[in-house]
Amino acid sequence: MSLIIVGSLALDTIEAPAGSVSEVPGGSSSYCSIAASYFTHPNIVGVVGNDFPESVLALFRDHQINLEGLVIEEGKTFRWGGRYAENFDDRTTLFTELNVFETFNPTLPDTYKDATHVLLANIHPGLQHHVLDQLETESFVVLDTMNLWIDTALDELLTLIKRVDMLVINDEEANMLTQERNYGKAARKLQAMGPDWVVIKKGQHGALLFHGEDVFSVPGLVLDEVKDPTGAGDTFVGALIGYLDQSKEHSFDNMKLAVVFGSVLASFCVQDFSVDGITYLEEADLEERYDKFVIMSQF
Amino acid sequence: MSLIIVGSLALDTIEAPAGSVSEVPGGSSSYCSIAASYFTHPNIVGVVGNDFPESVLALFRDHQINLEGLVIEEGKTFRWGGRYAENFDDRTTLFTELNVFETFNPTLPDTYKDATHVLLANIHPGLQHHVLDQLETESFVVLDTMNLWIDTALDELLTLIKRVDMLVINDEEANMLTQERNYGKAARKLQAMGPDWVVIKKGQHGALLFHGEDVFSVPGLVLDEVKDPTGAGDTFVGALIGYLDQSKEHSFDNMKLAVVFGSVLASFCVQDFSVDGITYLEEADLEERYDKFVIMSQF
Repeated sequence: MSLIIVGSLALDTIEAPAGSVSEVPGGSSSYCSIAASYFTHPNIVGVVGNDFPESVLALFRDHQINLEGLVIEEGKTFRWGGRYAENFDDRTTLFTELNVFETFNPTLPDTYKDATHVLLANIHPGLQHHVLDQLETESFVVLDTMNLWIDTALDELLTLIKRVDMLVINDEEANMLTQERNYGKAARKLQAMGPDWVVIKKGQHGALLFHGEDVFSVPGLVLDEVKDPTGAGDTFVGALIGYLDQSKEHSFDNMKLAVVFGSVLASFCVQDFSVDGITYLEEADLEERYDKFVIMSQF
Repeated sequence: MSLIIVGSLALDTIEAPAGSVSEVPGGSSSYCSIAASYFTHPNIVGVVGNDFPESVLALFRDHQINLEGLVIEEGKTFRWGGRYAENFDDRTTLFTELNVFETFNPTLPDTYKDATHVLLANIHPGLQHHVLDQLETESFVVLDTMNLWIDTALDELLTLIKRVDMLVINDEEANMLTQERNYGKAARKLQAMGPDWVVIKKGQHGALLFHGEDVFSVPGLVLDEVKDPTGAGDTFVGALIGYLDQSKEHSFDNMKLAVVFGSVLASFCVQDFSVDGITYLEEADLEERYDKFVIMSQF
């Protein structure tokens, strides 16, 4: 098995300045796996209720996402509602209904246990630990998390961070974890917690990749319109690990490219609601967007 | 005459988390001209009092800065005092004593009037207009300004922006001038005001260069310690126009390099108080720092 992705699958309701959508595909795993699908065949582990639309499962299958590890339980799918302020300065959670996700205990199918790449997408760190416990071979593990777990499950998160190869967090979370505002100092503290690789996401300012003494900066693409930033971070990390799984190389130069492709997919994500910006993209779409990053940052 | 720089010369008193300094060289022109001196021989126009230290004039001469347009008046030099909060989130102006700068009326020596490059460093837009009125040949003009003039001299500033080739401002100022938070939209509004080239500085996040439909992003160097950010923007634009004056080419590719060298010098500036970070640099220092930008942004 090459890449497994463990995260949430949800139905989202989103209010943003450009419009509103209701009960659309969401959750970290949906974004991660669709983004990764442009580079490899991701295998997901997750749970949905029996109300989860067949059309979304078909969408996953269209993107060559293996659903063997997806459990469909009696009950309702996890639902999340959020509202963005003008200029996306702020996001308010309107509701969180865990439903079948409340008792989710990720169990890897046997065929998943020799994964070469594992993406622990954003879910409770206890569940992320449980996934790692089931692996039977050495994997390259990428961890995504969020402020909620830093606030509510810090000890489990810190022991988890020790176990992973790459930590991907945003600038606020880096600051919460390290009490450092300086990116270099924050990254060194995070590296000292365990991971060889640290990525700090800076929203529209792009992202920074740290490894040993090396730093790489990918810019944020300058976009005229952002419709819905939901899932942009998940999309970024999904494409990143998808690219790694395809190229099977963990050199700094290759990791730079993984980060660039993460940014390429994230730039598509924010241009439409839900996963609409990242579904059914053609190779030419990715190439054109990649070229924009080249023009924008290469001198 | 190749490059002329018109701006302020001051004695600064700075309080920052890393320490305090008093009556040190400051003002937009000091930073701009020293930064430009690594690429060309800048010619400055400005005024100081007869209390201005001879040692600072010697420092300018050491950097091959032509002082023909510098007037030394009876009286005291412009003084500015500022205090930085922890993390440099905020800067408070402690005092501003204009002194001889109050009646400054920049007069170009005849030898300056055929300048190929003109940097209107940060001073009142009325004075910047007056400089352009004295030019006798076509020049490439770069304009730097600040929030103070947007608040207090907007009409003069807007007519000035029409007359220049490149506008360099920071993200807050871009937002003040355009009411746009989106960088792309803000830049297009600024381009529509006149300048072919627009640079939006984003502090530690680097800078964006806009020209027609093209965008270039230079990252901010990740530095462990920032001692004093005073003059970093002036240093950036000084090195930028110095590089242009040396290379005499206004292609997008060359402008990218000018922006990178602006960032190289600005990264030295913030590492020490006053102009100490950018004085007496060796070619090898610049090359080493340039290489860091290459590693950090090229893929």
